[in-house]
Amino acid sequence: MIIDCHGHFTTAPRTLHDWRARQLAAVNEPANQPKASELKISDDEIRAAIGGGQLKMQQERGGDLTIFSPIAGQMAHHLGNQQTSYVWSEVANDLIYRVCELFPNHFAPVCQLPQSPGQSPENCIPELRRCVEQLGFVGCNLSPDPSGGYWKDPPLTDRWWYPLYEELVRLDVPAMVHVSSSCNPCFHGTGAHYINGDTTAFMQFLLSDLFKDFPKLRFIIPHGGGAVPYHWGRYRGIALDQKREIETLLNNVYFDTCVYHQQGVEFLTNVIPIENILFGSEMIGAVRGRDPDTGEYFDDTKKYVDACSRLSAQDRNKIFEANARRVYPRLDARLKKLGK
Amino acid sequence: MIIDCHGHFTTAPRTLHDWRARQLAAVNEPANQPKASELKISDDEIRAAIGGGQLKMQQERGGDLTIFSPIAGQMAHHLGNQQTSYVWSEVANDLIYRVCELFPNHFAPVCQLPQSPGQSPENCIPELRRCVEQLGFVGCNLSPDPSGGYWKDPPLTDRWWYPLYEELVRLDVPAMVHVSSSCNPCFHGTGAHYINGDTTAFMQFLLSDLFKDFPKLRFIIPHGGGAVPYHWGRYRGIALDQKREIETLLNNVYFDTCVYHQQGVEFLTNVIPIENILFGSEMIGAVRGRDPDTGEYFDDTKKYVDACSRLSAQDRNKIFEANARRVYPRLDARLKKLGK
Repeated sequence: MIIDCHGHFTTAPRTLHDWRARQLAAVNEPANQPKASELKISDDEIRAAIGGGQLKMQQERGGDLTIFSPIAGQMAHHLGNQQTSYVWSEVANDLIYRVCELFPNHFAPVCQLPQSPGQSPENCIPELRRCVEQLGFVGCNLSPDPSGGYWKDPPLTDRWWYPLYEELVRLDVPAMVHVSSSCNPCFHGTGAHYINGDTTAFMQFLLSDLFKDFPKLRFIIPHGGGAVPYHWGRYRGIALDQKREIETLLNNVYFDTCVYHQQGVEFLTNVIPIENILFGSEMIGAVRGRDPDTGEYFDDTKKYVDACSRLSAQDRNKIFEANARRVYPRLDARLKKLGK
Repeated sequence: MIIDCHGHFTTAPRTLHDWRARQLAAVNEPANQPKASELKISDDEIRAAIGGGQLKMQQERGGDLTIFSPIAGQMAHHLGNQQTSYVWSEVANDLIYRVCELFPNHFAPVCQLPQSPGQSPENCIPELRRCVEQLGFVGCNLSPDPSGGYWKDPPLTDRWWYPLYEELVRLDVPAMVHVSSSCNPCFHGTGAHYINGDTTAFMQFLLSDLFKDFPKLRFIIPHGGGAVPYHWGRYRGIALDQKREIETLLNNVYFDTCVYHQQGVEFLTNVIPIENILFGSEMIGAVRGRDPDTGEYFDDTKKYVDACSRLSAQDRNKIFEANARRVYPRLDARLKKLGK
């Protein structure tokens, strides 16, 4: 089967955005903030949003299942505060849960976390537990920069994050390292901040002992790993200069295939071991249009993987399915329950 | 001939660093700051530093000339203030001038600018003029982030930078977009901040009208363009979604070949038009060691370009020489004066 590890509910009903706007408008007046229960979205609205959006495109492109999470750009941990982030995460995650209950054969849920700049990641544990243990989520998105482009929290390798990592290991769920929107005018969101976040996180991991402390912790670095595969020699060399080996990261760090041209995906699959590559498209996301040269959608990354001539059938199976089942064991269990 | 567009004086005598340390130690006591004239470095010391460092490696690797500038990581515009940045830039640039006077056949000078966080780029014009008009410099390094990893100044496409751009165009010199060291613990300097700076600057250019306002302004984006070539489809797609075309940047934006593995340089030369690629190594720089698999230095990028099987002799001539002469017309004039 074809598992897309990277999808966000970018076509969520307008009502969701309106609710969030009301919450943020009342950020300093807790009594006036909307309750979660005030968000009214019917099952039919969800069916319409999904059926005319991600499900339609998943099927048109020959996909089977998408690992699905709230809109990355709307996590916006830098807006509001710890309290609003709690409630917003619950609302956003509950909506993902409903999508996956309505379409269990096509979507599996991943949660956002109630991060907030300067606030301990430990605060994210209850929502993570609720999502995984009560609602069947298979992973989470973790922002390395809750400040939204100013990078004010400690690096991902700091002990600051360790309580959350202990819980990720206990629950046996991976985290996708994914920034949210940028409030820094220097950084375009999907064009710079996303890619920089990926590169930055990898470099943090490279010179740390994080995975000695957490041998079972697993991260997916999206958007093809930012700049990392292209600069693989640079990272290998920096590691060696520091008496380290880049290869040791490959037990814990994975890359998706959200690279939007054929040569880029070919390159990724030539440079990075196949065991560390998970199919992902992030559709409907950063790039909505079609390549005028080919008539195909830029983010139809399945076409690129299909066209990589050097990949064997076994390689493709790993990229499309087996690696995802290994990295997300709760996804594997969920699929097995469905007879898949 | 083989022109390396990207070298810094990373082997400068210890005395230089000591002078800078004294300057910064007295940042709030102007009367106690060292004068430029207090830095004593003899011609023999320069000859030793160059002869045993960049010149030796340039010759061992078959290079002819390096476009040479002060140590990027030591520009450190975030340390000190506008006044110390003025004096430090003069000191650092004067030393580069002396290197290039001692070895005119092997080095051509590029200056750092006295940038300072929150201070108008207009303040850089006198030092730029002095270097170009009086000392024969052929270009400059421009940091898109004088804050050293917090990105607090406006994007490079903001009118904030326009007075400096007017001067770059008037002098007909290009700027290499090059951040300095990072004081943000999230960003490793050469592994994350450098690469992010490149990606960020390109993305700023992509959605702006900067080059409509300055059709003759030219930027070199170093380190192979950060993440840009790898994500060329993403950038093409984002541009098209905004009714723009990425190709229009190619009259103004160039990439060097500081990508430290064979596959990366192959990829760069396959994706980016040859006219937009300038040979660069940044040796002796971010990666000092040798690849244990090949026994070669990671940053010996000439070997990678030589080994790109698809490049014609004409392509190589463009990458190694002709593009640099075109992008740096004052380098071309300087070489012609030397009979080259």
